[in-house]
Amino acid sequence: MTSPAGGYGPPDASAAPRYSGVRTFARCPHVRSPAGVEVAAVGVPFDTATSFRPGARFGPEAIRSASSLLRPWHPVLEVDVFAGRSVVDYGDLDVTPGNAERTAVQVAEGLRPLLAAGVVPIVLGGDHFVALGELRAHAEAAGGPVAAVVLDAHADTWDQYYGERFFHGTVFRRAAEEGVVAPERSILAGMRGPLYDRGDLDAARSLGYEVVVDAELRALGPAGFGARVRERVGDGPAVLGLDVDVVDPAFAPGTGTPEVGGLTSFEAIGFVRSLAGMRFRGFNVVEVSPPYDGPGQPTALLAANVAWEFLALSTVASR
Amino acid sequence: MTSPAGGYGPPDASAAPRYSGVRTFARCPHVRSPAGVEVAAVGVPFDTATSFRPGARFGPEAIRSASSLLRPWHPVLEVDVFAGRSVVDYGDLDVTPGNAERTAVQVAEGLRPLLAAGVVPIVLGGDHFVALGELRAHAEAAGGPVAAVVLDAHADTWDQYYGERFFHGTVFRRAAEEGVVAPERSILAGMRGPLYDRGDLDAARSLGYEVVVDAELRALGPAGFGARVRERVGDGPAVLGLDVDVVDPAFAPGTGTPEVGGLTSFEAIGFVRSLAGMRFRGFNVVEVSPPYDGPGQPTALLAANVAWEFLALSTVASR
Amino acid sequence: MTSPAGGYGPPDASAAPRYSGVRTFARCPHVRSPAGVEVAAVGVPFDTATSFRPGARFGPEAIRSASSLLRPWHPVLEVDVFAGRSVVDYGDLDVTPGNAERTAVQVAEGLRPLLAAGVVPIVLGGDHFVALGELRAHAEAAGGPVAAVVLDAHADTWDQYYGERFFHGTVFRRAAEEGVVAPERSILAGMRGPLYDRGDLDAARSLGYEVVVDAELRALGPAGFGARVRERVGDGPAVLGLDVDVVDPAFAPGTGTPEVGGLTSFEAIGFVRSLAGMRFRGFNVVEVSPPYDGPGQPTALLAANVAWEFLALSTVASR
Amino acid sequence: MTSPAGGYGPPDASAAPRYSGVRTFARCPHVRSPAGVEVAAVGVPFDTATSFRPGARFGPEAIRSASSLLRPWHPVLEVDVFAGRSVVDYGDLDVTPGNAERTAVQVAEGLRPLLAAGVVPIVLGGDHFVALGELRAHAEAAGGPVAAVVLDAHADTWDQYYGERFFHGTVFRRAAEEGVVAPERSILAGMRGPLYDRGDLDAARSLGYEVVVDAELRALGPAGFGARVRERVGDGPAVLGLDVDVVDPAFAPGTGTPEVGGLTSFEAIGFVRSLAGMRFRGFNVVEVSPPYDGPGQPTALLAANVAWEFLALSTVASR
Amino acid sequence: MTSPAGGYGPPDASAAPRYSGVRTFARCPHVRSPAGVEVAAVGVPFDTATSFRPGARFGPEAIRSASSLLRPWHPVLEVDVFAGRSVVDYGDLDVTPGNAERTAVQVAEGLRPLLAAGVVPIVLGGDHFVALGELRAHAEAAGGPVAAVVLDAHADTWDQYYGERFFHGTVFRRAAEEGVVAPERSILAGMRGPLYDRGDLDAARSLGYEVVVDAELRALGPAGFGARVRERVGDGPAVLGLDVDVVDPAFAPGTGTPEVGGLTSFEAIGFVRSLAGMRFRGFNVVEVSPPYDGPGQPTALLAANVAWEFLALSTVASR
Amino acid sequence: MTSPAGGYGPPDASAAPRYSGVRTFARCPHVRSPAGVEVAAVGVPFDTATSFRPGARFGPEAIRSASSLLRPWHPVLEVDVFAGRSVVDYGDLDVTPGNAERTAVQVAEGLRPLLAAGVVPIVLGGDHFVALGELRAHAEAAGGPVAAVVLDAHADTWDQYYGERFFHGTVFRRAAEEGVVAPERSILAGMRGPLYDRGDLDAARSLGYEVVVDAELRALGPAGFGARVRERVGDGPAVLGLDVDVVDPAFAPGTGTPEVGGLTSFEAIGFVRSLAGMRFRGFNVVEVSPPYDGPGQPTALLAANVAWEFLALSTVASR
Repeated sequence: MTSPAGGYGPPDASAAPRYSGVRTFARCPHVRSPAGVEVAAVGVPFDTATSFRPGARFGPEAIRSASSLLRPWHPVLEVDVFAGRSVVDYGDLDVTPGNAERTAVQVAEGLRPLLAAGVVPIVLGGDHFVALGELRAHAEAAGGPVAAVVLDAHADTWDQYYGERFFHGTVFRRAAEEGVVAPERSILAGMRGPLYDRGDLDAARSLGYEVVVDAELRALGPAGFGARVRERVGDGPAVLGLDVDVVDPAFAPGTGTPEVGGLTSFEAIGFVRSLAGMRFRGFNVVEVSPPYDGPGQPTALLAANVAWEFLALSTVASR
Repeated sequence: MTSPAGGYGPPDASAAPRYSGVRTFARCPHVRSPAGVEVAAVGVPFDTATSFRPGARFGPEAIRSASSLLRPWHPVLEVDVFAGRSVVDYGDLDVTPGNAERTAVQVAEGLRPLLAAGVVPIVLGGDHFVALGELRAHAEAAGGPVAAVVLDAHADTWDQYYGERFFHGTVFRRAAEEGVVAPERSILAGMRGPLYDRGDLDAARSLGYEVVVDAELRALGPAGFGARVRERVGDGPAVLGLDVDVVDPAFAPGTGTPEVGGLTSFEAIGFVRSLAGMRFRGFNVVEVSPPYDGPGQPTALLAANVAWEFLALSTVASR
Repeated sequence: MTSPAGGYGPPDASAAPRYSGVRTFARCPHVRSPAGVEVAAVGVPFDTATSFRPGARFGPEAIRSASSLLRPWHPVLEVDVFAGRSVVDYGDLDVTPGNAERTAVQVAEGLRPLLAAGVVPIVLGGDHFVALGELRAHAEAAGGPVAAVVLDAHADTWDQYYGERFFHGTVFRRAAEEGVVAPERSILAGMRGPLYDRGDLDAARSLGYEVVVDAELRALGPAGFGARVRERVGDGPAVLGLDVDVVDPAFAPGTGTPEVGGLTSFEAIGFVRSLAGMRFRGFNVVEVSPPYDGPGQPTALLAANVAWEFLALSTVASR
Repeated sequence: MTSPAGGYGPPDASAAPRYSGVRTFARCPHVRSPAGVEVAAVGVPFDTATSFRPGARFGPEAIRSASSLLRPWHPVLEVDVFAGRSVVDYGDLDVTPGNAERTAVQVAEGLRPLLAAGVVPIVLGGDHFVALGELRAHAEAAGGPVAAVVLDAHADTWDQYYGERFFHGTVFRRAAEEGVVAPERSILAGMRGPLYDRGDLDAARSLGYEVVVDAELRALGPAGFGARVRERVGDGPAVLGLDVDVVDPAFAPGTGTPEVGGLTSFEAIGFVRSLAGMRFRGFNVVEVSPPYDGPGQPTALLAANVAWEFLALSTVASR
Repeated sequence: MTSPAGGYGPPDASAAPRYSGVRTFARCPHVRSPAGVEVAAVGVPFDTATSFRPGARFGPEAIRSASSLLRPWHPVLEVDVFAGRSVVDYGDLDVTPGNAERTAVQVAEGLRPLLAAGVVPIVLGGDHFVALGELRAHAEAAGGPVAAVVLDAHADTWDQYYGERFFHGTVFRRAAEEGVVAPERSILAGMRGPLYDRGDLDAARSLGYEVVVDAELRALGPAGFGARVRERVGDGPAVLGLDVDVVDPAFAPGTGTPEVGGLTSFEAIGFVRSLAGMRFRGFNVVEVSPPYDGPGQPTALLAANVAWEFLALSTVASR
Repeated sequence: MTSPAGGYGPPDASAAPRYSGVRTFARCPHVRSPAGVEVAAVGVPFDTATSFRPGARFGPEAIRSASSLLRPWHPVLEVDVFAGRSVVDYGDLDVTPGNAERTAVQVAEGLRPLLAAGVVPIVLGGDHFVALGELRAHAEAAGGPVAAVVLDAHADTWDQYYGERFFHGTVFRRAAEEGVVAPERSILAGMRGPLYDRGDLDAARSLGYEVVVDAELRALGPAGFGARVRERVGDGPAVLGLDVDVVDPAFAPGTGTPEVGGLTSFEAIGFVRSLAGMRFRGFNVVEVSPPYDGPGQPTALLAANVAWEFLALSTVASR
């Protein structure tokens, strides 16, 4: 299929209800070629690397489902996220359940053609481990390590679980070791809850990451956080991610390792919006586990909106 | 049935558990005559006009169920909502599923005898479209347009959906066009989330409504909001409504068109209480969709409490 | 997109997990052109015409989701449902929520190009009313009325509800009146549960339908039912439909008007399989209401399998 | 309120949807006086006496909710359950949560005026303990012990639990000891599942009850069961009860002490219908625990239909 | 089993996943002897005394299940809750369902050996009534009344329900009457929502309790609350309890008498942490009702974390 | 802990409710030593090898929870499953999420001491892959391959998934290849539903297994099946397993790869009981996925009862 003049985008919502049609991200067309595409939602249905509740393999499906409610105009950032842009749902990347190491390779390979074509991918997880392949792909495309900006309840810099080194809780250690992220330009924000050891967060800092724990993040507020991120990241290539467990289980019950006492959705979205104007090469929203979500799918709805905020950031950056 | 001396009210909760008996609003008697009634809960089990998730037809049932927990004394406004008052559950109005236009007529007809008798109706929706018939009835009874004070995530002033003009998202445009509301005395507050078009809220303003978006509402706080509403509404007849989607899906997952990043229940109730002292001719709480609510029915519980706050406002105004 | 040599079909399930990718029926490609297509799943996300629990508008989504588990080989009918065949997911037809009459027109229009091209559509409802548009389209394509073979707890031959003539419970009366079905070649089977009136089923018979109530259907067994249908339908054009409420709520809790004491899934599938060898011009499976389904989506899973049995019937007939 | 000419009954379902109005049993009027009443649904919202999962206190509410789907005509017994009859919802009896002994007294007192007036009560439980008060009331009204015909997975003839003698598992021992049932005319059918001791069922038999275990019941079939009951009960006063755990948890997941391997709903209803022609003085359906029911409320739906079958039995007996 | 050198504690979470093994509190060993134990989680599976939704009998099971996610290090209080401490799960105390009075005796008896051995019990409810037996045990062990510090939406100082004096809403009146708490050193904080009567909270104050309603609690903030509690309680023996209904139903839907407009989990935990440094003789977290919790068990997760915060308070106090 | 005289068994259920205490299988003590043990429930919380819905890692927890309802006496087989026997809950074996191959080793190692001591293990899965380690352990202990008797909807004899050879659908191929089962003495029964290829079941047969598809199994009935198994298995060592997907999703919605049209629980239990008198060295019940189970946990309840039937088979065999 060739790209239509004016690019890809959702159908007119006044022609048929938004709950019509095969579920794609924000009702955008399902296109498997990067030609003529600027932004692509990309699912990674993988949850082998989760340490507690599984189910994130169905995260892309749930986010797509919830995203059918999204509309084009962002009233705060004042952009139409589709106008003049070409946005598609690329479908899912191949993964190998039961084999995290191979899946990271598949994710990186799957993203390569998109990045080579200059597409900005919004990755829909899957557990947080999917970020490893994503970061590898970005580093390869950028010709060097990228900055990671992450909102998450956990630093995910543990070394191993039961001898397994490829886990959703080890991803930012592996990424640093592999040189695909630049910890000195990266920031991990929102950490809270019980830890294994006093040294857990120090270990993240020893790898070079800036760690902004929950209390500090709340104290900074969106404006302070936005300034801190800009200062930290600088002008180099950067990727933005949000693990839905950064918000409280009241707002995101459907996740793998919930921690009580988290942000509200309103707060989390404020932190994302504070980054408007920054140019990210890619995004991810991870750890949506639909079987643990409520009947009204609040977690998937939040994740769909976060992905839409990412799309808006990309739109602002493209102006 | 004739009205008892002292008016209608709930049975003594110390005689039998509150979960006893046929479910009526706040355990008040089910009475189908306006004689001797001051306030009546009135269900409108209608959801044909919903644009996304249906189910609000079961909203009145769920609100009644949850309302059995309510007690008489309001510790903040310091009123007994039943003492010296006559409060009933009038049951449901007739509706025609599949026919919104006819239903609006039925709702207006159904409310007419109540308003003619001076009863203050608290309408339990149903989707937000039920407000059209309600506003028609109030305008007829008041002999002119009424002010609408609305807490909602959406302005509901679109013109049509797929060619259908009677929809839950068009109600305040239709009401303005029909002259049953006075937009210049009305206020729509709490709007947030993705819109179809940059002009969506301007269109509401062009109709004459004051629109207070989410951020502004939060900045005003309850006191500021209360002052703004008093100034806007003045002394003329007014109706107060709350669409449960003004709160976040964490607090109200069971609703038709949820938007993330909303108010907390605490905040929403604060905005309602800020209006204590104003005299409203009627109230509504809408968009409770039980099949999407959580196992503990938090949305219905919130709506029942909002209706109870309305009852308290009415009590304060009657003193 | 042009049809591939050998026709359309699902991807290799050994390359990626079946839960990968945008959800289409049985993982078949989403194709909006009838060219080169033999069988097409077609969603009709409509539930305005339901008389009790809504939600069937999300039926197509849920059936697609559950259908990802389906595999190609039918071990009882001994056919590969995809081998040598071209099967697609055509997406959803346009509908107008709140307007059943217009939706019936849209459904008929939406199916016309498929039928004109000789495609066998498997309609995924939606409430049972979607069958009216479907039957109109088939009658038009066939140049005359078609036989309807229906498994359902209800005869759906009432005349109106609250003055509305286009409802899920009136579809076979309307279809007979309009001359799009031939009642004398049609059979309605599985009726059970409380009725409005002694004459309800006689009314269906007066329209010319053969009515086989639940007890008789059980007594016939699959073989007897298959013989009865063949005898009744003859060689003319025919459409086969199954309303999931023909099975018990234990097996299909997610439906609009459940009736207890129904068939098991095993029995229902046996009745469908008994028709192997007959050539149907189209099929439908209706009344899946996901918000009332269990956490494991048993109703959607059953409906997906029924659609797959329909596909197998079509394959057998094509040999 | 005086009884209308022709008696009480549900409103016309063609005027408004069946999901309209305050929820009463089968949409019958809520009447608190026995005058002019022939059959009354009576809730007993009590679950203190349950030994495992509580929640049956909300059983009457759930059964009323599900009963709104019921229609008048019974196509198998060929009766209109409302025509020429006067049927009401009497509401709930007073109970004392936390005090089973006192509640049994309250239940008996609550039923006394109904029985004195010749009303046939259909008791909606509540846990099975509610039957003790019911049987006391019947024995008092009948001037002697009544026969109990019970479909249940458990014989409920244990002596005590943790020293408590008034429990849902002791009800038929207490009733025999008190002389309110005549075990020699009574039958307990459907027992299955693990027992505390080899002697559990022998103890029931020692009290004089006939015990028909699950396998025997299946072997008898409806006709055999009907004959056995008629022979056992004879012409004396009798009460018929069904504990929803006699069916399998697939059909009735929402119950307090589920046992796998039970009857289907179809089978259970067949056993009830086999008693058509017998004249029972009262009925009960117990052990519906809504918090454990599925989203589509299958257990409540089954119980509502069982109550409706009881109403039909009463209608047949009244001819 | 004898206490191991170094005390009891959880197994190494790097050896097997945290979701392995028989569910005990925080994966600590299940030990029924107080020897060598410093802190013990103790379940009381009782809900007979609940006035609305039952189910808290399954609270201990759900809290244990959710607690498997807990880790050792508290990053805010900077303590390892297990290091150098001996922590066990003592299992559940005997209770008598249906008999609150006897259960209070059993709870007191059950705790006696623990308190005699100097163990700090963290009681996992169960409805709030379980606190009566707990307070009796503490008063006996302390040789006089203890201070109660309680976070709760309700003051629980009513006198009786339907004639029953032992109820979850009467516990702090009974405790004061019995002299097992010292109201003049006690504080009840977080009260909100509809009351039975203007005098409800005054009655609590008349008993001697300090009552800090919701608005005042929010105004105090954690630091102010911490100071107020220290001043009130002084150096005498004290017990700290949290009823999960002090938080909003969005965060704790699974509870018996939910009240909307409550605290967030973040706020509630802040109030608990503000008491670090105080030495409590025991703790309780009550009113978790799993059948009303969401699919992801957010209420149980919150309660497990509250119990963990209690453990941390105990650790800080022990230094 | 040393074994008590008379062996291990559950506590007296008349002392405290069955829902009391830390959840162990059938309330038996949690003992980690094989000394003095005859039968042990052993959990394997592993689901990495599942090809569709995960969650079986929480299967052991859910089965233990549901098993608290079990009582000692089997009224059909007429045995007390605990009397004169020593039964414990051994807890869970170590597993490595994300690494199926290593987990199979861990399972075999974990079972070795039990089998060496002559304990009969009842394995609680976990996905079906856990059977590979179990069969290895049995073969080692038996000194040769064992017979596998399996009730399952799937033959689980595929060769690989996406290149992974250790999957829940490959277990009986691997077991045959490794020589730990003797296919010529084994029987796989209950296969139904769509297959990948015509040859799927032939492949199972080529490996030497007897395959009894669903229709044949139903035709055999329990007696025929029992005879067939006895004939097939002979006197050699044998292991009996049941995958809960052999029953219909109505009865077991909480499973990983549900197939519609399955057995009822009654039928499945009948097939298990038909093997009474055979002496199995071990048992397993697998594929319970709690996040997909209904609110009343019917799947876990069924699995708990199946495990209890296994215990009864073991008791019968021990006489």
